[in-house]
Amino acid sequence: MSAKQNVAKVGVLGARGKVGSEVCRAVEAAEDLELVARIDADDAIEDLVSAGADAVVDFTHPDVVMDNLEFCVRHGVHAVVGTTGFDDGRLDTLRGWLADSPGTGVLIAPNFSIGAILMMRFAAVAAPFYESVEVVELHHPDKADAPSGTARRTAELIAAARAAAGCGPVPDATSTALDGARGADVAGIRVHGLRIRGLVAHQEVILGGVGETLTIRHDSMDRASFTPGVLTGLRAIAAHPGLTVGLENFLDLG
Amino acid sequence: MSAKQNVAKVGVLGARGKVGSEVCRAVEAAEDLELVARIDADDAIEDLVSAGADAVVDFTHPDVVMDNLEFCVRHGVHAVVGTTGFDDGRLDTLRGWLADSPGTGVLIAPNFSIGAILMMRFAAVAAPFYESVEVVELHHPDKADAPSGTARRTAELIAAARAAAGCGPVPDATSTALDGARGADVAGIRVHGLRIRGLVAHQEVILGGVGETLTIRHDSMDRASFTPGVLTGLRAIAAHPGLTVGLENFLDLG
Amino acid sequence: MSAKQNVAKVGVLGARGKVGSEVCRAVEAAEDLELVARIDADDAIEDLVSAGADAVVDFTHPDVVMDNLEFCVRHGVHAVVGTTGFDDGRLDTLRGWLADSPGTGVLIAPNFSIGAILMMRFAAVAAPFYESVEVVELHHPDKADAPSGTARRTAELIAAARAAAGCGPVPDATSTALDGARGADVAGIRVHGLRIRGLVAHQEVILGGVGETLTIRHDSMDRASFTPGVLTGLRAIAAHPGLTVGLENFLDLG
Amino acid sequence: MSAKQNVAKVGVLGARGKVGSEVCRAVEAAEDLELVARIDADDAIEDLVSAGADAVVDFTHPDVVMDNLEFCVRHGVHAVVGTTGFDDGRLDTLRGWLADSPGTGVLIAPNFSIGAILMMRFAAVAAPFYESVEVVELHHPDKADAPSGTARRTAELIAAARAAAGCGPVPDATSTALDGARGADVAGIRVHGLRIRGLVAHQEVILGGVGETLTIRHDSMDRASFTPGVLTGLRAIAAHPGLTVGLENFLDLG
Repeated sequence: MSAKQNVAKVGVLGARGKVGSEVCRAVEAAEDLELVARIDADDAIEDLVSAGADAVVDFTHPDVVMDNLEFCVRHGVHAVVGTTGFDDGRLDTLRGWLADSPGTGVLIAPNFSIGAILMMRFAAVAAPFYESVEVVELHHPDKADAPSGTARRTAELIAAARAAAGCGPVPDATSTALDGARGADVAGIRVHGLRIRGLVAHQEVILGGVGETLTIRHDSMDRASFTPGVLTGLRAIAAHPGLTVGLENFLDLG
Repeated sequence: MSAKQNVAKVGVLGARGKVGSEVCRAVEAAEDLELVARIDADDAIEDLVSAGADAVVDFTHPDVVMDNLEFCVRHGVHAVVGTTGFDDGRLDTLRGWLADSPGTGVLIAPNFSIGAILMMRFAAVAAPFYESVEVVELHHPDKADAPSGTARRTAELIAAARAAAGCGPVPDATSTALDGARGADVAGIRVHGLRIRGLVAHQEVILGGVGETLTIRHDSMDRASFTPGVLTGLRAIAAHPGLTVGLENFLDLG
Repeated sequence: MSAKQNVAKVGVLGARGKVGSEVCRAVEAAEDLELVARIDADDAIEDLVSAGADAVVDFTHPDVVMDNLEFCVRHGVHAVVGTTGFDDGRLDTLRGWLADSPGTGVLIAPNFSIGAILMMRFAAVAAPFYESVEVVELHHPDKADAPSGTARRTAELIAAARAAAGCGPVPDATSTALDGARGADVAGIRVHGLRIRGLVAHQEVILGGVGETLTIRHDSMDRASFTPGVLTGLRAIAAHPGLTVGLENFLDLG
Repeated sequence: MSAKQNVAKVGVLGARGKVGSEVCRAVEAAEDLELVARIDADDAIEDLVSAGADAVVDFTHPDVVMDNLEFCVRHGVHAVVGTTGFDDGRLDTLRGWLADSPGTGVLIAPNFSIGAILMMRFAAVAAPFYESVEVVELHHPDKADAPSGTARRTAELIAAARAAAGCGPVPDATSTALDGARGADVAGIRVHGLRIRGLVAHQEVILGGVGETLTIRHDSMDRASFTPGVLTGLRAIAAHPGLTVGLENFLDLG
């Protein structure tokens, strides 16, 4: 591992996947980072060590990610992980490995979009100040699930923030409605999903009180919009040894 | 009746109601119109004639509006009517009366908001050019019905325009959804209703095709926003003898 | 030329250019069109005839487009033209050629985005009904000019529609302003240009009267969004012999 | 002064002014507050003491506010102040008075709109994460200044946050522009002011990076939207002895 605070040499696991290849492009374009290893299913993970990687990015598969991380932690290589499938058991196992390698950091993040993270944070901070709040997510019409995972998570965070602040239920006098007209109920918060050709991934949180509304909207027009979050993770990971869950812990959110 | 083309002297039926009193204010504020009679439940409708009214505005009640109109048509007083409850039978009766008073005009309009009329027209014109379209209406949380009548009407007009142009169904790959997440289905068009404190009456139509979207939004912040439509009706009615249904027939919509 | 009303066989002039290659892709993807010739600078335009093209799309250069069109019109091949540089002289020359080939149609269009055309049309139709109107355009920060050509054209169309309807100037009580705070003045209409990374090409027209606003917004997220307009031109051109300027003439705009 | 932590009995200074009378209405409508004194220019401020006021709200005039506050602090009455004109000298004077009355709190706030405060805070927190940011404010056309004070303040806060994080200037390749097209420059941030009939007071901050944008929008449809901020100030003031500048200090902003 580099003696410097900052990561300089980066390996990418899952380098030939759709996400991994975007990550490779972003690392190569960053002046302060050097891409030293592209590793995919048929490559030997030991190449990370011979290439001198300070840190890896892992967008692979739940079936292989734990083996990858065991190797990395044992060799003191930091890891920034977007692969899914981490339950409490896996997180505990990771903490055990990291206890034996105290200078090494692992970041597990379900969402690397800084914009989505800011939107969720701002929605949760604002929610207790407003009587009403609803979530609208808008995506391309090829999406299979509704509402989106981000919209559900946003509604849950809003509901938790309102409960913590002692807010009552949002007002709604609807007595006659067509089925579905008022959206889905997620933890008491209404969530609406639109499917429109031409859109990519968009979400709006609308909060309202007497005489005013506050709207927080995130528009993601390109899947590459997650890469700044990955680079942020890479730049911060060496300064955060141990296990971190959620990129928001590396962001200065005021 | 005035010999001039344009109405100058106006009577208001239902003058002390919430809507009627707004109409009185608007007529008084208009330089080209004179308010000559304010008539409500306890007043004699004959006052219209002695006051020399060229035209009336009627925002009264389905129970009395036909008697009001019979009187007006018989006396050659034009009428601009926002009262609801007109079925085909009533419209036929009206046409019969008007046949005997050929210079007189009656406008029956379910919606006097010029903005709402433009929004519906533009949505219907644009709909055949786009693969996807959905309607979002946003109102204060004291509203009893969802979706709003305007949103339902908009969806029906969009569906009719798409059918006339031979468009197929809008694309939607949703296979897993929470109840209500995709809104209500009105004639095959998805409609979403939000209820937020601080809002009054708002609607957005979002149309989308490959790589682009077109959005038409109407925000009504004040109930007085229907009065320009009533004045437009008053100014045009003398030039439109006979029965007209819908204010859009008096607007130059290109 | 095909005896059928509809164009089936299409040639593309400028086929290897950025725009031309998008057009080729779109023609190939259309079930009712067949791409029979891809012609660029080094190719012989005579191939159009041997390939049996009913119509061509021309996105080439002002220096060569007149020669292309002379050839096409003489051989009875319809043309849908996005190349710029047509002044009154060139249009007159074209009309002369077309007079000798009465079944042939040529469409010259400065803008093939149906969404942009609808936005401009709707803005002009709505403008006389509202006291206030302003235009906001939003683009990526690499754009050299401000405001965009579409925004200038929109403001001019709005100003013309207001003048034709006898509207006075828009209200504005501003007496103290920082330089530029109120945007640019285009024919008496205020136009604002934003430059934001992540955006592509977007425009919003906001109209307002007492108590209400109407907003028309076009978001173009992908340069491919002009191709449906080109296909619309191809499908309509055989039914419109002679010269047509502006794709709006082929659209049913209510 | 009440021995309880929370203020219960409230006096209003400037009670017959436009703002003061809104405050009176809001205090009366609040279940946990009691309006015990309405004081205006011709009334004796001593009535505050005889009425047992725990705290006052002051929306008066720069000429009288210091006398009001001297009286309040000397009598241990907390003050929530929206009157303008506080410079460093006045703030120092206030601190001196408060040093002699250690249990008393005074809040001086230039802005009581919680929505505007949240918008400014979120904009400043998000600004360092994005390459681009611009501010758009939209108001009724009777407003005299452009851009609005809130928009200027927002731009200054954004610029300060970017400077503190070491961000460079926002990108802008504009080389040909109509005068004013790119808005006003406030501390390097572009600010655009729209004036539209039907609007009240609205502001949007648009931030953008590669492939995504984040938008924070505040819509104030009614001047009464500042009253929740005043009530928040009243409920918190007893727990914050000494001088506080800015309502944000009483809000849990995460």
